[in-house]
Formats: sequence, structure tokens, C-alpha cells
Amino acid sequence: MKNHDVIIIGGGPSGIITGVTAKKQNPEKSFLMIKEEEKGLVPCGIPYIFHDLEDVSKNAMGPKPFVDAGGEVLVDKVTNINFDNKSLTTESGEEFSYNKLVFATGSTPTIPKFIKGYDLDGVENIKKSYGYIDQLMKKTDAAQNIVVIGGGFIGVEIAEQLAKYKDKVVSLIEMEKHCLYKAFSVDFALKADIEIKESGVNLYTETKVEEILGKDGKVSSVKLSTGKVINADIVIFCVGYKPRTDLAKKAGLEINSRGMIRVDNYRRTGKKDVYAVGDCAQTLGFITGRTDNIMLASTATAEARVLGYNLFNIKLLRGFTGTLSVFSTEINKKAFASAGAIEQVAKEANIDYVIGQFKDVDRHPGTIADTYPLEAKIIANPENGEIIGGELFGGKGVGEMINIVSLAIQKYVTVYEFVSFQFGTHPLLTTAPTKYVLVKAAELAIAQIKKRK
Amino acid sequence: MKNHDVIIIGGGPSGIITGVTAKKQNPEKSFLMIKEEEKGLVPCGIPYIFHDLEDVSKNAMGPKPFVDAGGEVLVDKVTNINFDNKSLTTESGEEFSYNKLVFATGSTPTIPKFIKGYDLDGVENIKKSYGYIDQLMKKTDAAQNIVVIGGGFIGVEIAEQLAKYKDKVVSLIEMEKHCLYKAFSVDFALKADIEIKESGVNLYTETKVEEILGKDGKVSSVKLSTGKVINADIVIFCVGYKPRTDLAKKAGLEINSRGMIRVDNYRRTGKKDVYAVGDCAQTLGFITGRTDNIMLASTATAEARVLGYNLFNIKLLRGFTGTLSVFSTEINKKAFASAGAIEQVAKEANIDYVIGQFKDVDRHPGTIADTYPLEAKIIANPENGEIIGGELFGGKGVGEMINIVSLAIQKYVTVYEFVSFQFGTHPLLTTAPTKYVLVKAAELAIAQIKKRK
Repeated sequence: MKNHDVIIIGGGPSGIITGVTAKKQNPEKSFLMIKEEEKGLVPCGIPYIFHDLEDVSKNAMGPKPFVDAGGEVLVDKVTNINFDNKSLTTESGEEFSYNKLVFATGSTPTIPKFIKGYDLDGVENIKKSYGYIDQLMKKTDAAQNIVVIGGGFIGVEIAEQLAKYKDKVVSLIEMEKHCLYKAFSVDFALKADIEIKESGVNLYTETKVEEILGKDGKVSSVKLSTGKVINADIVIFCVGYKPRTDLAKKAGLEINSRGMIRVDNYRRTGKKDVYAVGDCAQTLGFITGRTDNIMLASTATAEARVLGYNLFNIKLLRGFTGTLSVFSTEINKKAFASAGAIEQVAKEANIDYVIGQFKDVDRHPGTIADTYPLEAKIIANPENGEIIGGELFGGKGVGEMINIVSLAIQKYVTVYEFVSFQFGTHPLLTTAPTKYVLVKAAELAIAQIKKRK
Repeated sequence: MKNHDVIIIGGGPSGIITGVTAKKQNPEKSFLMIKEEEKGLVPCGIPYIFHDLEDVSKNAMGPKPFVDAGGEVLVDKVTNINFDNKSLTTESGEEFSYNKLVFATGSTPTIPKFIKGYDLDGVENIKKSYGYIDQLMKKTDAAQNIVVIGGGFIGVEIAEQLAKYKDKVVSLIEMEKHCLYKAFSVDFALKADIEIKESGVNLYTETKVEEILGKDGKVSSVKLSTGKVINADIVIFCVGYKPRTDLAKKAGLEINSRGMIRVDNYRRTGKKDVYAVGDCAQTLGFITGRTDNIMLASTATAEARVLGYNLFNIKLLRGFTGTLSVFSTEINKKAFASAGAIEQVAKEANIDYVIGQFKDVDRHPGTIADTYPLEAKIIANPENGEIIGGELFGGKGVGEMINIVSLAIQKYVTVYEFVSFQFGTHPLLTTAPTKYVLVKAAELAIAQIKKRK
């Protein structure tokens, strides 16, 4: 039996970052990563393989940073773990013992098996697997009629990408009133719907899939709740992901009500020296204060860094307690982003809120050639003015601008304080200093709070 | 004598924002703005008039938001103020009394009169005046050989813009080793020099102007400290700005050692009910803790918002005490930005520091079509890890990314805390979550601190 000080199961972003960070902190310790496929993918880059990147190899992500830091990698599958004698066995029959064990087993697509026809040939999903996506791309290349089920980020992005091929008919089915309803309030989600349609996708909102119909075992069409039947050479489920916890369950780790491995704020499971991080592990909502099911590579890497520093002893207090959803995407060359509690989230979690909203452009003067509209929404606590959420719509700058909001939320910045936030501006790069949209939105939130009193 | 509750002298960004904010807080009060020219300019947009915007009218900024809020505007010049009976007179002979008086008189270009030939015909500067810039543009349009003196932001930006005309020979003279040396450390300033040259500007660093030579009272060439003589149809001084305080001095306000109107943190001068804001007023450095001469529209508007809220009674504590320099620009399609104490500033102000620096790209995977290199520098206090400065180089996203650093500085975020900062990322919009450059730079700053101990 080979021994390693640390064994990490999984080679996605959280596995890699945990490994790199921990190895740098503990260069004398031996590290092994066990991952199931040799090649990995940048998870959020997957939709862009289908058009912009043109090839799966352009979206490859491997454990190179971990190997460079001195870690070993084994392509294999862990089949059994014995926590008592701190050992595990793999599919190929190898045995390892460890001092510290990290679950970074990620997540896997949800397949809605209640939909008849889900198992027909040509019904696919977005499994985060290099080989699978490579094959799927060949299939979408050959297909003319493509139906994407689910208007979350992955569904929207894949539909938008596939619709760039002018010879394909791409349909997107979303059961809620708008796409991206978990990340954006109604008026922003409406803008997203418009951009999805503008990009050439046939969008069906407030529509469910009745049945997937087939011929000779192969998908031929999709029957919607409206009665409409859409031709389909291929159907792609994009209805979310669930944590991959089979191994953890089998080994005896506690799983929470959302199906995630229960961990504390330092990613420790109930078993000594066993940790879980990333999509497979529990998250506690920064604003909601409850177990949420946030599964994002960006927040996962933040958790992984803290775990990496603290694996052998807690050196670094977790700076920001609780996991914060920070989303961004681009549809039809318009960027959308949100952070923290948007209206629906606040309502659903019974959190009181006010909103300040402001619209301008993202250059100044607005006569600059690449000017985009820019709109900001700040969601604040009416009691003390703390910023609890934000939404942005505009040009590419929105991708970093939302992180100003993220930091403001994580540092409990109030709208009162934010009025005197000193930011930098430049004609070719940002909105005007006189109308910096985040600050203006904060001012309008203050006015809303005043109205209440 | 007409009475107004509030009179604001000056119609630049700080005058407008003070007026808009204060009027909204006090809708029942009467507001008058007295400004010298009817049309104003977006100050930081001025360099872009010379090429990208093509016309001065495209960079116009007027007091419309103030008028919309219910303020009155008078185009005139204040000539005398009597603080004792709270009244003032204007050039056209009008007399006004006020309850509150705000100086927002801005700044005016420094003319280095010690340089022989400074008063020749064809020797110009960048006065923030609509009419002046309109005329200057006609002159640069007609000129073939243009010499810009001073490689600060305005000089660099104007030289870059003028060099876009392929028929013009544009030279830029900077006496320091590198351009933008006040805003960027040597390695970043070096990159700026490279981009300036790449954009077609003849750059002379570590070079002074000996003399401006003329023929029949008109400029003909510039003699450099190296002995070289450059042909010049027009010479533009871009050697900085000085606060416009003649009126304040004459009226008896106290002026500090940097020539700015002395004010406290709420922009109050020594005279009751008299305020000063923007370029004409004192700034106290957020990091340096001393009187600095920060003159930026963006930070000026932050000061102006606080003043606007508090003009009649202090409703809103100033959230972030002290003024923070936040700079950004774009040269040859590369963006540069900095915030707070860069190395030279820290050294000069005797502030101990460590640096973490990290380089990647601003999209992920890096195979995305519009990917730019992206480099971040975090400057931190080795004693407690507080982030005191940052620099960024990359694509346009840098313009908003620097504001994450600004907020981190203003909220005293430490590099230890910043390791667990939860940011959002997206392939088409940002750097990778595994290598988010600001967080990686913070990690490297921690490593530097550890080395010291």
C-alpha cells in the first residue's frame, strides 16, 4: 500500500486549487490527485466549445499547476474508502493510505427521468467530460434541429452558441417565465430573453416538455406542454447539476438535505482528516444564512484556497464567511451579471430589501465608439443600508464591475458609505464619474429607505 | 441684490454633483451655479477630441442634471466676495447674497514660464475650456510637426491620439525616466513607454526642454537637453494643473502649502458656510495621511456627493476618509490602471510595503478570440497585510477591475482576507477562477510577508 500525506479525489478547479495551495504551504508533504479522465475541461468554457472555440481541445484544463507545484496525478477511479485505517482502493486495484483526504468530486448533470423519451438515442446532456463533449460536438455539428431543455446559464449559452450556425434551428425550452430566473430579477431576465431571441434562438418560456418523441429508438421531436411539436435531431438537457456524492455516501460521510457532503466553514466533514470542497460540498449562503446549493467554479476556488492554506493547521481565517453567488454571462454581445440576493432570492428567503436602479452608458462621453448601455441595480437592507445584492447589464466591463458589488457585500458596505466610494474612471474604459452607475443606484436605494421611514 | 440659499462657483464635475446632490436633499432651497463659459467639457475626455471623437461638441458636458434638479445657472464670473455680509458681485455687475457658498473653481494648466519661448505663438496648453480646445483642435489639424511636453496622463493620451493621423510627426518629451511615473511603478511604466512608441509617437524620456525656438514670433522648433532640435508647428504643454484659487485668495480663504483651499474632511473652509470641493480644494491622502495634490474628476465627485448630502446638516458620514488616487488610461489599445500607494509613492511617503505580482490573461480559456494579457500587482502593508495599492495592465476590463482594488483599500481588506474573496468569472468576460490575478497577487504578497518574518 502506497502512502501519500494528502490524497485529493477529483481534478476540477477545486481539486486543483486545493492541491496547488496546500502543496505550496507544505512542500515537504506528498500529494496525490486521483481523477477519472486524463483530460479535463474548463467547466464554464464548455458552451463556447460549440462555436467560438471550435474544438474541445481549445477548452482543455489539466492539473499542470498541481504537477508543477510537485503533486502526483493518477488517472483512476476510487471505489472504496476505509476511514478507520485511512486507506482507499481504486478501480484498477491499487491501494493507498493517506493522512488527509479531500473530496473534490464535483457535480454531474441532472437527468429528468420523469420525462418520457429521456433515454432515446440523441438525448444528451452537458456532462463535464472531455470525451463526452468531444463526441457531443460531432453530433451537434451533424444536427440541423437542436432542442435545448432548460434556460439556466448553460442552456442559454449553448443555445446562443449553436444558433450562430445559420443552418441550424435551435430551440430553447424554459418552464419559468424567463430564462436565468435564479440569477436575475424580472426586468433583467426579460432583457436576457430579448437577447436570446435576437441571437436567433427560438425561445419558449413558461413551457414544459411533455414528452420526447422518437423513431426507431432515436429522438425525432419534442412535444411541449402547449401542444406544439418541434423537430429534433438532438435534444440537450441543461436542467442543472447535482453533487457527485456516491462515493462519499458509500464511505459513510454525512449528506445534507440538498444532497451535498456536510462540511463546516473550513470544509471539514464529520470524519477527522476528511474534507470536501467545490460542487460536491455544502455551501452556507452568505446572505441567506442557510444551506444553499451554490455550484460555481469561482466560489469553489475561494473555498479551495482557504482549505489549501488550512489543511494541516488553520493558518488563515476564512475572510468572508458564507458562500456568495456571483454570476456573469454574455448573450448576443450583451453582458449580464449578478451578485448576492436578487429580488426573488430575498423574497424567498424572507429578507427585507429596497432597490436602487440606475441606467447610463459604459463610456464617457457616450459618443465614444464602443459605448454600450449600462444598467445597475443595488439591493440593500432597509434597516441598516447594507448592500446585499446587485445586478448589472451592459458591455464586457460588467464582468469585473460585478466584483466591486461582490466585495461590497462581503465587506458589509452600506449604501450610505458607498456614496463616497472613490472609484477610477476613464472615457475609453468606464461610465462617467458624475454618473457612476453603482454609486447612483446606491443613492437611489437610500432614497427608497427614506421613503419607508 | 438677489438672494439664493446656495451659490456654487464653477460648473465642472464637482460643482454639478454638489449641486445635484444638495438640491435633491433640499428641494425647497434655491440654488444658483455661476460658471464662466456656457459650454463645458468632460475633463478626462479632452484628449479624445483630437482624434477618436473628431469634434469638441462630442465631448460637451453641461449643467443639465443640475438644471433638471431645479437649479439655476448664470454664465458670468464672480469678481468679489464679502464673507461678512455673505454676498458676491460678478463681472457683469450683478450682486447676489447667499446662505451657503461653494467653491468648485477647478484647476488650470501650469505654464512653465522658465522655459524660454513659452510665450511664442503656437505654444499651447490643455485649458479645460470649450472655446479654447475648439480652436486648438483647428490648429493641430493644420499642423504637421507637433511636440507635446510632459508625459503624464494628458500628455500621453493627446500624443497617442494625434499620432493616429499618419501625416503628423508627434513627439512627446518627458523629463523622468518613464511616462506616467506618478501613477505606475517602473515595470508598468516601461510597458506604457512601449505602447506609446508602438502607437507611433516619438518618445523622448529623461529629456528636458532647453528652449522653444521661433521665427517671427511663431514657434518653429524645440531644443532638447540632449542637444537635439525637433521641428514644431505647434507645441502643447501638458505639465500638470494648478488649483484655481485667485478668487478664494482674494476673498481671504486659507490656502495650504500645495496651493489648495484648506478644507476639512467635510469640505468646510475656515469661513462659516463656505465650502470648497474638487481640484481647487485640499485633499488628504487616504494612504499617505498628508496633504496630497490629487486632482481627479472621479474622486472629486465622491467628495462632491458627501458635500451635497451634508451641506445643510451632516446627514451622511464620509464613508471613506481621505482621498485615494485611482488612475486608469488606455494606450495603443492596452489599458493601464493603478490605485493607492504604488512603489514610488510608498517609498517617498516612507511607508513600508511588500509586492505580489501575477500575470495571466483576461479570458478563460486563453483561446477566446479577444483575449488580452493581464497583469496585477498588489502592494500590501507587511505588518498587518492591509492592501495599500494595486496596479493593473491588460484589456478594457482593467478599468473596472481597479475599482475592486480601490474598494479593498478603502475597506482595509488584508491580503489574508482577500485570498477567500468570492468573485464572479466568465470565459468571455474575465480571467479564470483558478488564476484570478488579483487574488493570486495577494497570495504572492503573503509569501513575501512570510519571507520577511
